[in-house]
Amino acid sequence: FKNPQIAVIAGDGIGKEVMPEGLRALEAVNKKFNIGMQFDHFDFASCDYYLKHGKMMPDDWFDTLMQYDAIFFGAVGMPDILPDHVSLWGSLIQFRRGFDQYVNLRPVRLLPGVPCPLANRKPGDIDFFVVRENTEGEYSSVGGKMFPDTDREFVIQESIFTRQGVDRILKYAYDLAQSRPKKHLTSATKSNGIAITMPYWDERVETMAKQFPEVRTDKYHIDILAAHFVMNPDRFDVVVASNLFGDILSDLGPACTGTIAVAPSGSINPEGKFPSLFEPVHGSAPDIYGKMIANPIGQIWSGSMMLDHLGYPEAGLAIFTAIEKVLAEGKSLTPDLGGSAKTDDLGKAIAAAI
Amino acid sequence: FKNPQIAVIAGDGIGKEVMPEGLRALEAVNKKFNIGMQFDHFDFASCDYYLKHGKMMPDDWFDTLMQYDAIFFGAVGMPDILPDHVSLWGSLIQFRRGFDQYVNLRPVRLLPGVPCPLANRKPGDIDFFVVRENTEGEYSSVGGKMFPDTDREFVIQESIFTRQGVDRILKYAYDLAQSRPKKHLTSATKSNGIAITMPYWDERVETMAKQFPEVRTDKYHIDILAAHFVMNPDRFDVVVASNLFGDILSDLGPACTGTIAVAPSGSINPEGKFPSLFEPVHGSAPDIYGKMIANPIGQIWSGSMMLDHLGYPEAGLAIFTAIEKVLAEGKSLTPDLGGSAKTDDLGKAIAAAI
Ligand SMILES: CC(C)[C@H](C(=O)O)[C@@H](O)C(=O)O
Ligand SMILES: CC(C)[C@H](C(=O)O)[C@@H](O)C(=O)O
Repeated sequence: FKNPQIAVIAGDGIGKEVMPEGLRALEAVNKKFNIGMQFDHFDFASCDYYLKHGKMMPDDWFDTLMQYDAIFFGAVGMPDILPDHVSLWGSLIQFRRGFDQYVNLRPVRLLPGVPCPLANRKPGDIDFFVVRENTEGEYSSVGGKMFPDTDREFVIQESIFTRQGVDRILKYAYDLAQSRPKKHLTSATKSNGIAITMPYWDERVETMAKQFPEVRTDKYHIDILAAHFVMNPDRFDVVVASNLFGDILSDLGPACTGTIAVAPSGSINPEGKFPSLFEPVHGSAPDIYGKMIANPIGQIWSGSMMLDHLGYPEAGLAIFTAIEKVLAEGKSLTPDLGGSAKTDDLGKAIAAAI
Repeated sequence: FKNPQIAVIAGDGIGKEVMPEGLRALEAVNKKFNIGMQFDHFDFASCDYYLKHGKMMPDDWFDTLMQYDAIFFGAVGMPDILPDHVSLWGSLIQFRRGFDQYVNLRPVRLLPGVPCPLANRKPGDIDFFVVRENTEGEYSSVGGKMFPDTDREFVIQESIFTRQGVDRILKYAYDLAQSRPKKHLTSATKSNGIAITMPYWDERVETMAKQFPEVRTDKYHIDILAAHFVMNPDRFDVVVASNLFGDILSDLGPACTGTIAVAPSGSINPEGKFPSLFEPVHGSAPDIYGKMIANPIGQIWSGSMMLDHLGYPEAGLAIFTAIEKVLAEGKSLTPDLGGSAKTDDLGKAIAAAI
């Protein structure tokens, strides 16, 4: 991607506070590495937009955003104003489906200077990726209610796993595992309980594994896998999971490393046919919005992932190294990291370190 | 229940090693409190039985077990011999549905002498229950495959939430919360992503909450809830969840307290129309079977829960107190607890403490 064109959407709540810091870091590497990134800002995919227009996005959102190489996203959701399933399905989930961002990639890494809730773990011990299927599976819109308002009332929702959908996420995860020193892939399943779709998932993993003889494959049921994230987080390298299981594991992983506020994510269309989206794992956090105490590292690290994706790995690394440096120094930290700095203090410290 | 009749099923793997210790503790309180419990042993619901008979259970399993007041269960599954979805759906899942054991109850408690993977937590800090729906939800047998062996292949599985099924588990959980000092109920949801069944779950929680004005209710999406189990496990009192979410949380909770090998569970029919089942949370662990190093506390504590259910709370407490005492003394511990005792050493120590 030459002179990458970036669509910037800050969204709701602390999304609006951390976005300027994400951009500050990007501008710093933009200059330093002469990348020629350009940024355009949009106010849709936010609850504010909904309040004004009665919908989360304009009708031409697809064509508008298709002109960009990537979307740099803050956070969306104001549950007091709008139920999450309206705001999220009207924005993020539309992007994931519309732009076929079928990979959700989330690093789980123990960083220096971040208080870790697990006993006896140190930076370097935990370093893996959760690769989440991002378009199908348990997140389907097929189903409904029968016998409403009676004692016989019930709701049904379908989980749908297609061969194409499963195989392409497995392929991505295996390619990633193959590229890493440990070459180890763990599949999240629940074939002992979810006895139709999950045995199918296992079957496709077995088939794909044959194409990657160098990669060591194992699988765990989601219940015990969640337990191992706490007990043996050093055991993992690449963890591949369905949409729902990946959602759970990619919050649980950062919780185990103390980095919920710090972790980044990418919703990626690997073929580059559509723009990919990069955003912090954390949400819009209405409870702390307005105080400028939100930790901007999730947003800044997401910018680093975006640069990797756009083909500027040195610039991505420069941002990540600056984050590590500032964390290790332990200055300019936000309250969640035990400091008393403001969102922009931490952002400026990282930009300066670049 | 006078002179309770107990069906004993040891099952597979370490189930066969820990069951005698569970019974040893039960026999001890049986004498001490003059309960008059009687035990009959069955070899079905095991993979051994399957190898001999080509099925997991005899055709008359239902009538046979209906004559008992409770089922004391070890563990089932030998994945090298039989896929888990065959052995489990042919046994445990049959019991849960056939005997309408719609409550799965699992305590999460930090015990003395058990190494805890979380930093800075001590016994007393963590003490809550996971109340899991145990008959419907995501564990449905409705669905199938289309276009097999082609590029268009896909599988579908339905999640099914009935008003009756949801309301009765919520009622049970609220009653439990109401009976506890903190009177706090947390609902596990995912209504921002699983946008048909989970908003329905939320709706039913809101409706039930009105009947329990003294109970403080909150809800978390399953991803961030899993994260809070690690970050803030002291925040919970009663956590109510669907079948799948409850499955995940009730392994994750014990993992956070270091008690996966120690935790008990009850699959309960609260009305007592059908026998309830009590078993350790851990599985058959084929990898350590045969070495007599399995920790029997999960089995023994399950016996304590069974006595509570049968109406002998002092006897239940006597077992639990003995477990705590032996753990606090730190003698006769199995290898998972840092000792070098055998399964039966630890079992005998607990029986002696009763
Ligand atoms: C073995 C499996 C089917 C079962 C479940 O998922 O219910 C187990 O994990 C449990 O929690 O009892
Ligand atoms: C907000 C929600 C719909 C979303 C998801 O479940 O996918 C979020 O939790 C995430 O992980 O990006």
